[in-house]
Amino acid sequence: MSNSVECSDTEVDQQRVYRTMAALAASGCTPQGTWLQLFRTDPEQSLGRNLVQLLARIRKRQAAQLLTPAPHDRLEDLRGCLEAEGLDGLILGHDDEILNEYVTPGGERLRWLTGFRGSAGMVLVLPEQAYLFVDGRYTLQAAGEVDPHFVQVVALQRGAIAEKISAAMPAGARWQLGIDPNLFSAAAYRRLEQQMADAEAELCDVARNPVDFLWKEQPPAPFSPITRVELADHGAEPREKLDILCGQLRDKHCDCLVVQAPEDILWLLNIRAADIDTAPLCLSKMIVHAEGSIDWFLSAEKLSHAEGLGAWSETYLHPEEHFFSALNMLAEANSRVWIDPERVSARVTRALEAEGAQVYEAQDPLWRLAACLNATECAGARTAHLRDGCALVDFMAELAVDLTPCQESDLVQRLSQHRAEQDGYEQDSFHAIVAVRGNSAQCHYRPIPDADDRVRWGDIVLIDSGGHYRSGTTDVTRVLAYDQGDVPLSAEFCRHYTLVLQSLIAISETRFPEGTSGMALDAVARRPLWQQGLDYDHGTGHGVGSNSMVHFGPQRIAKVGSAEPLQPGMVVSLEPGLYFAHRYGIRLENLGLVVADPAQPGWLRFENLTLVPFVHRMIMPEMLSVAELAWLNDYHAGVYRHLARNLSPQSARWLAKATRIITL
Amino acid sequence: MSNSVECSDTEVDQQRVYRTMAALAASGCTPQGTWLQLFRTDPEQSLGRNLVQLLARIRKRQAAQLLTPAPHDRLEDLRGCLEAEGLDGLILGHDDEILNEYVTPGGERLRWLTGFRGSAGMVLVLPEQAYLFVDGRYTLQAAGEVDPHFVQVVALQRGAIAEKISAAMPAGARWQLGIDPNLFSAAAYRRLEQQMADAEAELCDVARNPVDFLWKEQPPAPFSPITRVELADHGAEPREKLDILCGQLRDKHCDCLVVQAPEDILWLLNIRAADIDTAPLCLSKMIVHAEGSIDWFLSAEKLSHAEGLGAWSETYLHPEEHFFSALNMLAEANSRVWIDPERVSARVTRALEAEGAQVYEAQDPLWRLAACLNATECAGARTAHLRDGCALVDFMAELAVDLTPCQESDLVQRLSQHRAEQDGYEQDSFHAIVAVRGNSAQCHYRPIPDADDRVRWGDIVLIDSGGHYRSGTTDVTRVLAYDQGDVPLSAEFCRHYTLVLQSLIAISETRFPEGTSGMALDAVARRPLWQQGLDYDHGTGHGVGSNSMVHFGPQRIAKVGSAEPLQPGMVVSLEPGLYFAHRYGIRLENLGLVVADPAQPGWLRFENLTLVPFVHRMIMPEMLSVAELAWLNDYHAGVYRHLARNLSPQSARWLAKATRIITL
Repeated sequence: MSNSVECSDTEVDQQRVYRTMAALAASGCTPQGTWLQLFRTDPEQSLGRNLVQLLARIRKRQAAQLLTPAPHDRLEDLRGCLEAEGLDGLILGHDDEILNEYVTPGGERLRWLTGFRGSAGMVLVLPEQAYLFVDGRYTLQAAGEVDPHFVQVVALQRGAIAEKISAAMPAGARWQLGIDPNLFSAAAYRRLEQQMADAEAELCDVARNPVDFLWKEQPPAPFSPITRVELADHGAEPREKLDILCGQLRDKHCDCLVVQAPEDILWLLNIRAADIDTAPLCLSKMIVHAEGSIDWFLSAEKLSHAEGLGAWSETYLHPEEHFFSALNMLAEANSRVWIDPERVSARVTRALEAEGAQVYEAQDPLWRLAACLNATECAGARTAHLRDGCALVDFMAELAVDLTPCQESDLVQRLSQHRAEQDGYEQDSFHAIVAVRGNSAQCHYRPIPDADDRVRWGDIVLIDSGGHYRSGTTDVTRVLAYDQGDVPLSAEFCRHYTLVLQSLIAISETRFPEGTSGMALDAVARRPLWQQGLDYDHGTGHGVGSNSMVHFGPQRIAKVGSAEPLQPGMVVSLEPGLYFAHRYGIRLENLGLVVADPAQPGWLRFENLTLVPFVHRMIMPEMLSVAELAWLNDYHAGVYRHLARNLSPQSARWLAKATRIITL
Repeated sequence: MSNSVECSDTEVDQQRVYRTMAALAASGCTPQGTWLQLFRTDPEQSLGRNLVQLLARIRKRQAAQLLTPAPHDRLEDLRGCLEAEGLDGLILGHDDEILNEYVTPGGERLRWLTGFRGSAGMVLVLPEQAYLFVDGRYTLQAAGEVDPHFVQVVALQRGAIAEKISAAMPAGARWQLGIDPNLFSAAAYRRLEQQMADAEAELCDVARNPVDFLWKEQPPAPFSPITRVELADHGAEPREKLDILCGQLRDKHCDCLVVQAPEDILWLLNIRAADIDTAPLCLSKMIVHAEGSIDWFLSAEKLSHAEGLGAWSETYLHPEEHFFSALNMLAEANSRVWIDPERVSARVTRALEAEGAQVYEAQDPLWRLAACLNATECAGARTAHLRDGCALVDFMAELAVDLTPCQESDLVQRLSQHRAEQDGYEQDSFHAIVAVRGNSAQCHYRPIPDADDRVRWGDIVLIDSGGHYRSGTTDVTRVLAYDQGDVPLSAEFCRHYTLVLQSLIAISETRFPEGTSGMALDAVARRPLWQQGLDYDHGTGHGVGSNSMVHFGPQRIAKVGSAEPLQPGMVVSLEPGLYFAHRYGIRLENLGLVVADPAQPGWLRFENLTLVPFVHRMIMPEMLSVAELAWLNDYHAGVYRHLARNLSPQSARWLAKATRIITL
């Protein structure tokens, strides 16, 4: 499969420049962002203009490869590849090498192969059939995105994959199914192995992913400039962080920790980059040694850029391709290596185990360390939320006087502009959800320009958005009416809005003893809804990073899988909701910072971070208890007190009205 | 170690009879129970009287071996044994071969070796030191029960065992620590292996437990008569149960299931026995084959007794000692074997894996099946609770007129007698807790005759008790005042009582969607207490079997480790509490049956089973919401309605007063 055409030096240079440009195009960098600094130009200059246009063209070409549904000859070509390798099929998930919710443009293999655009799924390609397994959120969407003649959509449930293999496999056969161990966490890989045992089939690691071989213009791994964060914003140097981490490694008699999660690297080295759209990540890999040194593995472009940023004390830079040989060396030295099987790839454990390393499996210690904000980061989070509150209030005050009909994505734009006017704003922390009418009932709706809905006078609009500020990350959801307070609201809607508010109050004001997990708290939020026979089909809250990922850390508030005890310094979203298909959805989201209860040692509570008012006329005060009403009035008084002096007189006037006291 | 003295036939017979008697003595059988039926006599006849006396003597001799603290030469002898086997130490836990909370008299190895009487703990014997690891409940108690010159008590926490080994082991050494794989579940064994890896030590399976070798008069495994339950009480024949189970085995492509848990065997075969005090279990082992046959492995005494009970369709009886060779045969046949690593011993997995069986690890399917009561069992549970309510009301009505000072264990006796007067009563479902004053603040207090406290006029008494009835099992906790309603109660006590009642009401009346685990519900019970900065340091509830174990099934309501979704037919206890050291403890416990909410498909709620009033004058009505007050009055009305007609006029009069309506 190698391409051994001879190239001239110029051609080699051209290829390198193009590769760099393609890698930049595959990153989350924007022209307004930081990448033009690499070329020491700005978008108004001629070079800048050309580069901006070139990048846009490359991005367009990259995107043009992702068709819905995908051309069916891709599946046929894939089967040809598999046969040549002696394989009976392939298992391919949605994740790419990052192993988290983000996928780089070149990592969109599932979408390239099938056309499915969802954020989670897995395709099983067999000699005669192909099955796309998706969870309940995506069954309808997936059916509309794949070619039903070639791919069958199946609801993902325990044992479903084994079942399909068993049904298709001839008696007595023992199929060999290809899998790319770079694209599955060690833990996910093991779960698949169990399914294969059930089906009496076998997984076979592929040396090169056959999709990468077939996908001719697959975007390269992203590249974006790396910057260092200042002490005033992070509050602890890598040295201090390393000391704590290395103490933990030594406690477990480990020689080193293998790190693949980019948010860990961001936190430990106090760096930010823009490899991923809306997340300031630098994709790379790392081995942290218990004696305090770091081996950091970076792609060629990043390496030369990182070297240019100046010395990293006791951090040794290496080309990315040396990572696996470094693991082999650890193994040969019989090192004891800490890995988190949920956060390193199966290829990492393979490299370690084959060569005889002692593997210590436990939760990634960096993840928990990073999730507990220090005092500087907590102060930064408060500042970020103050700025974010001002942006939201400006936006809502403006809406109150400007109700021109527009598209959902226009509101996304306007809201983003208000955030951009705030000090310290860097980028939106995710693609904002602005959803009108029935759209708001789909928890995972996201407006796409040219395919979004019209916002008309009188509409109910759900807005879930957030920003990365230099000092912290925000995430907030409110439901508004696109009117001037003059369109009548149904009593049923107001009852549902008030129930969700009661749910938010219940979880916001709960106290809990140290050691309590988010899982244990989940029902506190749901109970006001449960008593009415209502519920929401998503978690109550996720962790939030500090100018890092907006879904961050081991902490969660959810029905299952969140046994991590909440600790002081952790930020979690509190976001109950109610959804009525084709009618409306209501979600109210604040962020809570876990703090020690000063009144009682050993007890914790949430400090509210979010400063955005609720909508008075959607609330039915007669449904609220005295305590709930007091909470609401206190909350609104706090919003006004914190924001008013930072607002324009017009916004401040609007806020004064929006936060007036509610009485029974 | 073998004893090859030649014996005459008479001596052989004498030994057999004595062994049977010793096994009966080691069981939970009482003379009032069923064991005398084996000898076709009753305790009033001469043979019966002799047998009763003989059993009592043997039991006394068995008990006399368990000294607190244990003689320290036992530890020295043990070290001699270990050295002879080339071992550096031994790890011995509290569990015996049953692997659950019950320990047979001969399984009390930890107590025999150290003197520690608690229900959980682990001793680590090293060449120079011995450490007893116990959890927070037992640190104080253990320190008083072991000889501090020879055994050091250590609080059990993650990594504690590895730490002690590392600290004691000379540099460069790699200690071999003996362990009996019969006494640890496969999962517990693996967790220990991880700790050994941390300490760089090794586990070595012992062929025979050295304690068993040293303990000269160790009681044999218990034996008690087996009886079959009637269809009217269990509602489903083994055939029906097997069909469901075998379907599950085939779904997972398993050839068989290995069963070590006696409660599974009890349920599947509809049998009851009395091997264990207060639990109707028959200790034995079983292999269930997917095609519908059962291999049942029983000790010699049980085998001949079971054969005498008549044919068991498609159930083949085998001597117990053939169990492991049967596992070897499964492995040689390359069978695919379902095991639950938490519920079979490490020796079972060893036998299967060494010989190359395919092991499928997943939760024991029998456990969940048995935990969901069928309609007959649900009706039986209601009947049992009606009887139990009458017994409790009789007891309380009697107390109201007879307040002679007495011992705590006298009240245990009196309560047990009232239960015994009820139709269908078989035995108490656990050793009742009757705890006065400060004793009630210890969650695990249990009065021991001659070492218990005096109950005096005006005392607050916590009573946690239950019964096995032919149709079901009960478990209830109430707090009473030992007076005639005339001793003043402190406002603080009443506030705490009312808070616990609010907590019980909150969990009792919660609705929840299908799929909700007990873990998710736990905080619903705690929140009324949390808001006051109060909590209790135990789970909110455990599963309860149907005339089986009182702690039963995979369902639990607790902060951690109870991911099992609650399903219709499951019974759970709901038992919040508050404890104030050296002062008083309050716990209020009802059993809830999980039922579908008839008003809304897909939703579940608890049907209350327990019919025992609360104490009016301990309740502060002004703390209750309107809804809580309504719940309480409804509850009391229900208690009266169900019980009154089954009570004596005197008890009914008392109940009418005890359940009168409370108003604000």
